Amino acid sequence: MTEMNDFAAIDRAIRTALSAQGFMGLVGAEILAIAPGHTALALARRPEVTQQHGFFHGGAIAFLVDNATTCAAATMIDRANQGCLTAEYKLNFLSPATGEQLACEANVVKAGRTMSVVEAKVWSISETERKLCAVALATIAVVNVI
Amino acid sequence: MTEMNDFAAIDRAIRTALSAQGFMGLVGAEILAIAPGHTALALARRPEVTQQHGFFHGGAIAFLVDNATTCAAATMIDRANQGCLTAEYKLNFLSPATGEQLACEANVVKAGRTMSVVEAKVWSISETERKLCAVALATIAVVNVI
Amino acid sequence: MTEMNDFAAIDRAIRTALSAQGFMGLVGAEILAIAPGHTALALARRPEVTQQHGFFHGGAIAFLVDNATTCAAATMIDRANQGCLTAEYKLNFLSPATGEQLACEANVVKAGRTMSVVEAKVWSISETERKLCAVALATIAVVNVI
Amino acid sequence: MTEMNDFAAIDRAIRTALSAQGFMGLVGAEILAIAPGHTALALARRPEVTQQHGFFHGGAIAFLVDNATTCAAATMIDRANQGCLTAEYKLNFLSPATGEQLACEANVVKAGRTMSVVEAKVWSISETERKLCAVALATIAVVNVI
Repeated sequence: MTEMNDFAAIDRAIRTALSAQGFMGLVGAEILAIAPGHTALALARRPEVTQQHGFFHGGAIAFLVDNATTCAAATMIDRANQGCLTAEYKLNFLSPATGEQLACEANVVKAGRTMSVVEAKVWSISETERKLCAVALATIAVVNVI
Repeated sequence: MTEMNDFAAIDRAIRTALSAQGFMGLVGAEILAIAPGHTALALARRPEVTQQHGFFHGGAIAFLVDNATTCAAATMIDRANQGCLTAEYKLNFLSPATGEQLACEANVVKAGRTMSVVEAKVWSISETERKLCAVALATIAVVNVI
Repeated sequence: MTEMNDFAAIDRAIRTALSAQGFMGLVGAEILAIAPGHTALALARRPEVTQQHGFFHGGAIAFLVDNATTCAAATMIDRANQGCLTAEYKLNFLSPATGEQLACEANVVKAGRTMSVVEAKVWSISETERKLCAVALATIAVVNVI
Repeated sequence: MTEMNDFAAIDRAIRTALSAQGFMGLVGAEILAIAPGHTALALARRPEVTQQHGFFHGGAIAFLVDNATTCAAATMIDRANQGCLTAEYKLNFLSPATGEQLACEANVVKAGRTMSVVEAKVWSISETERKLCAVALATIAVVNVI
């Protein structure tokens, strides 16, 4: 099997896992990209995902970061016998997410045998602006599954 | 005005802010306690807040941590002219949140003039068990509002 | 062999590892306690470990946190075929470390098969005061060694 | 006064602060670069800065990260009435620092009025390789000084 075919299987498995998440259904989020070492997710603003001032809620930002970093790590594993779990992350909020859309881009910094490190940038996007509103650094556990 | 009356005003302001969050309405969560330096929130399991294996989603845990740590810091400020914003947090997942309820307890470690540090513990609660499933350490910005 | 004897071997192995660190020799630090799930280290103030205002340098605090959290995790492993490596930590500075001594206490929050989570508190101690000056949350990798 | 002259004053103030640190004298470290929003520090390997396997000690890496991130934030402030303090950082170790030299590059992600966010990369450098061995994300408090 070619490498491209292998990655198609990984891509499918990630999309299947995300679509099986009840919370993904509740909050929403669109998959913008899945590529080796990279995932991008987006979320449109609606009142249900905001905090008290009408900006995107920090919890909605964290949800994107959690899913995007774990999926980015999952693009680099052997799907036959490995899975990914979020071990921990740190999330810095830089400015209010005032835009109409959030986009979270996660990139693998180091893919390890038992642990991968992934960084994420979250952009607040309006018609006139694309503003960096949060950055995160995550450790993803790579676990063996039988 | 007595100190107790002051805290009643803080308590009310925190509850008002939380109930004005669209995301709080979407995800849910019950306020268990608001006391000086402390906040506890709880979330009941329903399919809409789970990940692909039926456990609480990490994003739901992060949502509780974000709100509980910021509210805990907000219990220690001068509401007349200060507000609180989540600056950053680090969140470690310890075990799958398999219970029927999540409870997040946040306690202020250091209340500062411009920055407070708050720790949080998240418990997964079932009929037979109360298991620590996540811990977090947060920095909350204390900002002057006019 | 009894459990106590096993722990004596772990205690010895940790002390041997620390005494083999060139940086431990350079910076200094005294072992206050090694117990299952717990380690405490201390460092006396001397000009060589301070920053520009004469307080303990953040790097000296981080050095204690790094060693104490990793050693605390190491108290919970099977020394016969496992070792510990610092995967990551987050360190919050709460107040200037103005005392004559630093003490770092590390406690295991969750001992895992491949990863342990450890929290640390750093105290600045003077004749009149024992002040919490930093808190940390660490992930320690537990690795199999042959 | 021109902007260049202003930055020359900032550059001088940072170098003065670093050279006044006892710990900087003890551990060593060379200033590679100070520019607006950027600082780079380097440390040569000698037995005194290693751990038990002869690699750079995590505490030496943290020392570079602490100083480089705080100095990077300090390049963006108004030296006349502001100063910088490390509030917190998270540090991920990616691979053993086996090289002959460490280089830490810190870049400001967001320069704020009361808080700046800075990321750092630490490279382990040998004759044949330049390997990313650690990444960090720091929050630096910007404080008003009279």
